[in-house]
Amino acid sequence: MPESDKVIELAKRRGIFWPSYEIYGGVAGLYDIGPVGTRIRNKIIQTWRRIFVEENSEFVVEIESPLITPSKVLEASGHVDNFTDPIVECTKCHKIYRADHLIEDTLKINVEGLKPSELTSLISEKGLKCPACGGELGEVRNFNLLFSTNIGPYSGSTGYLRPETAQGMFTAFKRVYETSRQKLPLGIAQIGRVARNEISPRQGLVRMREFAIMEVEFFIDPEDNEVPWLNKYYNEEFRVLFKDAKEKGGDPVLVKVKDMVEEKLVVNPWMAFWMASASRFVQSLGIPSSNFLFEEKLPHERAHYSSQTFDQIVELMGEKVEISGHAYRGNYDLSRHSKFSNEDLTVFKKFDQPRVVKRKTVIINRDKLKVNPDLQREVMTMISGKSPEQINELLERRVQVSGVPLSEFVNVIEREEKEHGTKFYPHVVEPSFGVERCLYLSILSAYREKKDRVVLSLPKEIAPYHIAVFPLLEKEELIKKAKEVHEILRRKYEVLYDDTGSIGKRYARVDEIGVPYAITIDPQTLDDNAVTIRDRDSWEQVRVKIEHLETIMDKLFSGQEFSMIAGEAKK
Amino acid sequence: MPESDKVIELAKRRGIFWPSYEIYGGVAGLYDIGPVGTRIRNKIIQTWRRIFVEENSEFVVEIESPLITPSKVLEASGHVDNFTDPIVECTKCHKIYRADHLIEDTLKINVEGLKPSELTSLISEKGLKCPACGGELGEVRNFNLLFSTNIGPYSGSTGYLRPETAQGMFTAFKRVYETSRQKLPLGIAQIGRVARNEISPRQGLVRMREFAIMEVEFFIDPEDNEVPWLNKYYNEEFRVLFKDAKEKGGDPVLVKVKDMVEEKLVVNPWMAFWMASASRFVQSLGIPSSNFLFEEKLPHERAHYSSQTFDQIVELMGEKVEISGHAYRGNYDLSRHSKFSNEDLTVFKKFDQPRVVKRKTVIINRDKLKVNPDLQREVMTMISGKSPEQINELLERRVQVSGVPLSEFVNVIEREEKEHGTKFYPHVVEPSFGVERCLYLSILSAYREKKDRVVLSLPKEIAPYHIAVFPLLEKEELIKKAKEVHEILRRKYEVLYDDTGSIGKRYARVDEIGVPYAITIDPQTLDDNAVTIRDRDSWEQVRVKIEHLETIMDKLFSGQEFSMIAGEAKK
Repeated sequence: MPESDKVIELAKRRGIFWPSYEIYGGVAGLYDIGPVGTRIRNKIIQTWRRIFVEENSEFVVEIESPLITPSKVLEASGHVDNFTDPIVECTKCHKIYRADHLIEDTLKINVEGLKPSELTSLISEKGLKCPACGGELGEVRNFNLLFSTNIGPYSGSTGYLRPETAQGMFTAFKRVYETSRQKLPLGIAQIGRVARNEISPRQGLVRMREFAIMEVEFFIDPEDNEVPWLNKYYNEEFRVLFKDAKEKGGDPVLVKVKDMVEEKLVVNPWMAFWMASASRFVQSLGIPSSNFLFEEKLPHERAHYSSQTFDQIVELMGEKVEISGHAYRGNYDLSRHSKFSNEDLTVFKKFDQPRVVKRKTVIINRDKLKVNPDLQREVMTMISGKSPEQINELLERRVQVSGVPLSEFVNVIEREEKEHGTKFYPHVVEPSFGVERCLYLSILSAYREKKDRVVLSLPKEIAPYHIAVFPLLEKEELIKKAKEVHEILRRKYEVLYDDTGSIGKRYARVDEIGVPYAITIDPQTLDDNAVTIRDRDSWEQVRVKIEHLETIMDKLFSGQEFSMIAGEAKK
Repeated sequence: MPESDKVIELAKRRGIFWPSYEIYGGVAGLYDIGPVGTRIRNKIIQTWRRIFVEENSEFVVEIESPLITPSKVLEASGHVDNFTDPIVECTKCHKIYRADHLIEDTLKINVEGLKPSELTSLISEKGLKCPACGGELGEVRNFNLLFSTNIGPYSGSTGYLRPETAQGMFTAFKRVYETSRQKLPLGIAQIGRVARNEISPRQGLVRMREFAIMEVEFFIDPEDNEVPWLNKYYNEEFRVLFKDAKEKGGDPVLVKVKDMVEEKLVVNPWMAFWMASASRFVQSLGIPSSNFLFEEKLPHERAHYSSQTFDQIVELMGEKVEISGHAYRGNYDLSRHSKFSNEDLTVFKKFDQPRVVKRKTVIINRDKLKVNPDLQREVMTMISGKSPEQINELLERRVQVSGVPLSEFVNVIEREEKEHGTKFYPHVVEPSFGVERCLYLSILSAYREKKDRVVLSLPKEIAPYHIAVFPLLEKEELIKKAKEVHEILRRKYEVLYDDTGSIGKRYARVDEIGVPYAITIDPQTLDDNAVTIRDRDSWEQVRVKIEHLETIMDKLFSGQEFSMIAGEAKK
């Protein structure tokens, strides 16, 4: 059984995740996150929030916007037209397939970027048939992945569930900019659900119809290349497969943030900042840097709005999963929303010094014109709607009006003007993560088998509980003592208390859900006031006095090795 | 201007919340929660999670389930049939109104519980017309508030956005029960978005089309009235308007949890437990107990599944808002889902001791029957499908078969059997909160005006930032020092750093968003290494050494009064 199936089985058995509406047979692409999964997931979100928002709280803020989105917004973003996958239907059994996947799986070729008509031709040329019934396949057509609904009681008021949180940040940009620091850079983060009506969702948390995204829309002045905040990541390094190497079939290289910026391997230094943040975040999930790389997308692989994109790809147990995307969205979104909403979404940049600019201006000799209304009309018709440059051209060509040179009435002069600033659309850098993919990959990465048993070696920071507390036997005095220990520890730690079943089964359960330490209260505890701490990863045990328990836990959770504690206790 | 409008204005101005998609003119009932609002909202959620989940972690777990719900689930729950509001359309201008609201607003009568046909009669009897154009109103009909969509590429695969998170817990109950402690009570909590296609959403956060719910579906054995966990709330008291008093136009009474349970004013002790939790939670939002009460619903006001319901109603500045609901849902949901899914959703209760039960059993004398197949057929036809009791009755009536007494072939005896346990549907107690209503009411309750300025006196636990740090002037040395102070404090606290604009404006801003303390670094700081702490509520200031700052903040955030600190500093 491949590791991914083992993880799915473990997840069902231990309440990490399972198909939603199971009792009704489930719905493909919808998953419940169970009690243990929700604890891990909440901690993953907290870790992301710390690295992406709180550590950058001078310039990143977090908002919440709705899933339900009016049509106009997703017309502006391009989703109503472009957020599609090619599908093909069997003319006999009417089963629907994702056309590109069907072709790729059958013919083992890459058809990324081909149009529906091209896919249709391929299908008929190669004689592909319906895998289910062998029937003829129809024409390939685009299927829009937006979930559609109607807002309010009037029909025709179409809305969609957002396929990304990003548009909520773009439509709120102006309000956020004005109510916060009114300065760039400004990051708007959001953690929230999105929905994509996938044709054929995969099993597990990798391709879901509803999932959560954590992303930052990071608004910058593209002319400002001073990024002092980058210092903290300057010497960070990670593996990147750049597009030139990728095109030539080359390998990823280990590259320093510093070099990416100095050698202009990223279109903007902030791309490197967010990739470094992503590298640190993914490592904090317990996924070592040797298990991921950033892969630059080739031009035809990029979304229409992006001039540079890197996918962060995790490779684990033979699986390759995109855990985050890093897109340089330029000014695409703000300019489109400006156009569709008729709102000015530019920001004003004040120059340090007012700049003197030369500007051509048209001067009209109204005194001469007003005595002759016909002539006036003729002159005005000739120049109206023309730029000073165009009028200058007319003058240079010595154009006449009713036999009189135009220059008798109109003149173009050059004047110096002071400009105090300029208006521009901020550009956007977007790091974007799938929450459930992070959950899945954390678990896959932590999955160990040890003497026929499963141990989930999650980092302490994202473990569902810090500590488990067990009375060895279901005896009243032991239960009482165990509950006392529970009360002491729960003031500071998340503690799982369990008094049901054999101690072996309880150890197995906490190993499987990744609880770092289990504390057992046994009959001897009533005499010596000492308990046993068991380490999840080594299964080593150490006996300590209850009065030292909190201090020892503080040491363990601030990074001290269990073997050190065990060594000290033995002395 | 009423307080609620002032809060809405403040919220827009300071980035707390505003209408979503503002640049497109907004969509009624959809709101963005801004940077400041999201910080407060996240802390409200944390507080709820602490009181409702973490403090009860022995028996409450949290899960996440999707918004998208297949039709079958909401057919079972009754929403497809019953989740409706009555609407009426103008036959002339085709504007659509919520019929009950229109009648209530115009005629000032209560029409709760009336059927569409009765509302139609009322409209025609009283001659109500379209308020917009004066046109005739049509027939009142029910409008379903579920947002509908289609799941996957096949048409006819209807899904809805969940109108409550509850059904996610009911459909997951079996899996959660089996993967967790396999004991009752078991609470399944969820915090998540829901959507209701309201006809005419009100302005603000009170009636939204998409919002978040925090709720617990709490599964209990209805025969188990031992609730030791109730001890901690035993002497808690709050105001309740019970249904008997309400029917007679009586007043709410201040009642102790203990008395509610002992006098059986609640159908189950757990109702009182969750109401006490709700009382504590709402007070932690800064809403005093004198500003809320629990109102018991009358039978015709309750949802179809509930045998007792209390609404927790907050009264503030003349506004009455339901902040939580407490419903005893009985076994309605589990039994419905069992029926619709054909899954057994009962739990098995093991008796402490096996119980001996007497059970009648039918004994058939097959030896006598098998010699005569015709007679055998006749006897079997007579008794098939009948209970032992019914057969006994036949025997007592001395019924004959082909002239022979039935008792020759059939006998009913009473046997003792051991039963080890029984299967039953757990009952459900449900406390349910609207997140955005909590946010709105916290702000409304904290809203103060002081010398023409606004101060948001939020409790420290839910303030968006703990501390603000300002350099008095935009001078390099001051900014450097201020950033040092920022770095020291942010290790432990959430700190807003701001160096733009006049100090008066910066104070005003942090007062308006509810930051408890502002620290200012001024030119003198460079000499004496001391800074000024300003208290949001009293505007008092105290000057302290930077080296004492962290200790002083620890004191302030562990409950010490600012005046005490100020007093000590002056000594």
